[in-house]
Amino acid sequence: MQIAVIGAADTTPEESGAAHAVGSLVAGAGAILICGGLGGVMEAACRGAQKAGGTTVGIVPDTGHGNRYLDIIIRSGLGHARNVLVSQSADAVIAIGGSYGTLSEIAVALKNERPVFGLSTWEIPGIIPCATPEEAVGMAVRAAREASHPKG
Amino acid sequence: MQIAVIGAADTTPEESGAAHAVGSLVAGAGAILICGGLGGVMEAACRGAQKAGGTTVGIVPDTGHGNRYLDIIIRSGLGHARNVLVSQSADAVIAIGGSYGTLSEIAVALKNERPVFGLSTWEIPGIIPCATPEEAVGMAVRAAREASHPKG
Amino acid sequence: MQIAVIGAADTTPEESGAAHAVGSLVAGAGAILICGGLGGVMEAACRGAQKAGGTTVGIVPDTGHGNRYLDIIIRSGLGHARNVLVSQSADAVIAIGGSYGTLSEIAVALKNERPVFGLSTWEIPGIIPCATPEEAVGMAVRAAREASHPKG
Amino acid sequence: MQIAVIGAADTTPEESGAAHAVGSLVAGAGAILICGGLGGVMEAACRGAQKAGGTTVGIVPDTGHGNRYLDIIIRSGLGHARNVLVSQSADAVIAIGGSYGTLSEIAVALKNERPVFGLSTWEIPGIIPCATPEEAVGMAVRAAREASHPKG
Repeated sequence: MQIAVIGAADTTPEESGAAHAVGSLVAGAGAILICGGLGGVMEAACRGAQKAGGTTVGIVPDTGHGNRYLDIIIRSGLGHARNVLVSQSADAVIAIGGSYGTLSEIAVALKNERPVFGLSTWEIPGIIPCATPEEAVGMAVRAAREASHPKG
Repeated sequence: MQIAVIGAADTTPEESGAAHAVGSLVAGAGAILICGGLGGVMEAACRGAQKAGGTTVGIVPDTGHGNRYLDIIIRSGLGHARNVLVSQSADAVIAIGGSYGTLSEIAVALKNERPVFGLSTWEIPGIIPCATPEEAVGMAVRAAREASHPKG
Repeated sequence: MQIAVIGAADTTPEESGAAHAVGSLVAGAGAILICGGLGGVMEAACRGAQKAGGTTVGIVPDTGHGNRYLDIIIRSGLGHARNVLVSQSADAVIAIGGSYGTLSEIAVALKNERPVFGLSTWEIPGIIPCATPEEAVGMAVRAAREASHPKG
Repeated sequence: MQIAVIGAADTTPEESGAAHAVGSLVAGAGAILICGGLGGVMEAACRGAQKAGGTTVGIVPDTGHGNRYLDIIIRSGLGHARNVLVSQSADAVIAIGGSYGTLSEIAVALKNERPVFGLSTWEIPGIIPCATPEEAVGMAVRAAREASHPKG
């Protein structure tokens, strides 16, 4: 199971707190956390996931080192095009806050028919709005599990 | 001047008509038309541009031939990531109708601070809604001209 | 017909001279010149092509302006991955000198079964070595023509 | 430490055996194995690494499932351009046999100044030829360690 957490590098304390909780819960559910590997929401989610003993993957836009909480780093060098890889690699996506970069990841996820769960993010038809990190991760894990083990 | 026309492969007659008019007007203004190179809005815009004596560029997601109205074809093989190249290569973007693929192109354009002019498309803060092809192309050409020749 | 001219940004006077001649001959044959859009071999080829009235396309690795002799610029932002697009978009490839970046473009072209004609470049099985710009362009144009109009 | 193992999907029993040994040794050294995620050399290396308790990452060219021995899958959808990401993400690269695809990965690695260790692969200036999997992995691990912890 791979769950992407997306959101801006530039973030509010509320969003960081939510991202940290989401990362922790994703790890607790045994899922791998995929993200864009930079700061803000991405870093908070990775920190939460590592603290909970999970595995974090950062697909960075450049060829640098990303944030300090990455177990695996994909040095894409693709610029904004790396957003597409984040969405595409996930079985389910959790969006937290976010600006246009996050919107592009949401759009690609929905185009690829991946479920997107939102916490205070864009209101786009197709996104399932959630009230808490617990609700978002709970639904994402269920959706990712079904995606990985489709019923016969 | 390079102007991108974005929109779905799957389109209504109204959108195709608008795309054809937009393509024709872009060519008439001496701008190069950039698009995703497939059918629907992309094909109609290219047909309009070629009829008006313009140059069309298609950045296709696969390594195939694209639609029949392309002067230049970039065989990206990048899948959805090619959307980023379409937006990034344009000095201004015109969005016509469209679904999630178009939304990802709009998001990247706005992230890159490219002006986006919309005809019956997504209502996202930052998009400038236009009533007619004439209005959209007029504004896009002015914006692209300023982007190419920034004031000292 | 689209012909790619590949080679280093960092180049010798002999390579620049050959690239200029190749660009001029590609344009003279009515083919579109595709390249990586930066300096050295790429710039010399574009200059030659524009002087001869041809059309030049640069697929740049960043989102900048490329060299001064580009009619069309694809702002890929993909870093080294843009090399793949240059090779893939061409019906035939001409390699002039070049280092590892050029080698990666040659490899992708051969992987995609595109013919590669070489002027003082890597000696890799599959490359057809040529003695002069005239020979290289003559063979590339014939190959590109066959690729565009395959025999029934 | 991230070590890439590159080589063809279409492979000989000798190459598969070497790849399996390399994967096992990479895992034994505590490094993460990065590869293109498909069959042949890639699959054999992943199988070896997983058996030895290591972590495997596959950057697949499509959006599919890759081989059966991947712990983490990056669904790039980038086609041949994904080769660039494999090379770029590694601190050191081990090339086993291989055809033009492998050559493109070698070229990008050398362009990025990543050390490349070869087992019966292309003879390109810059590749360090090795006689055995033990020698290749030993040297790659030392190089990767220095890359991750540069001396002050």
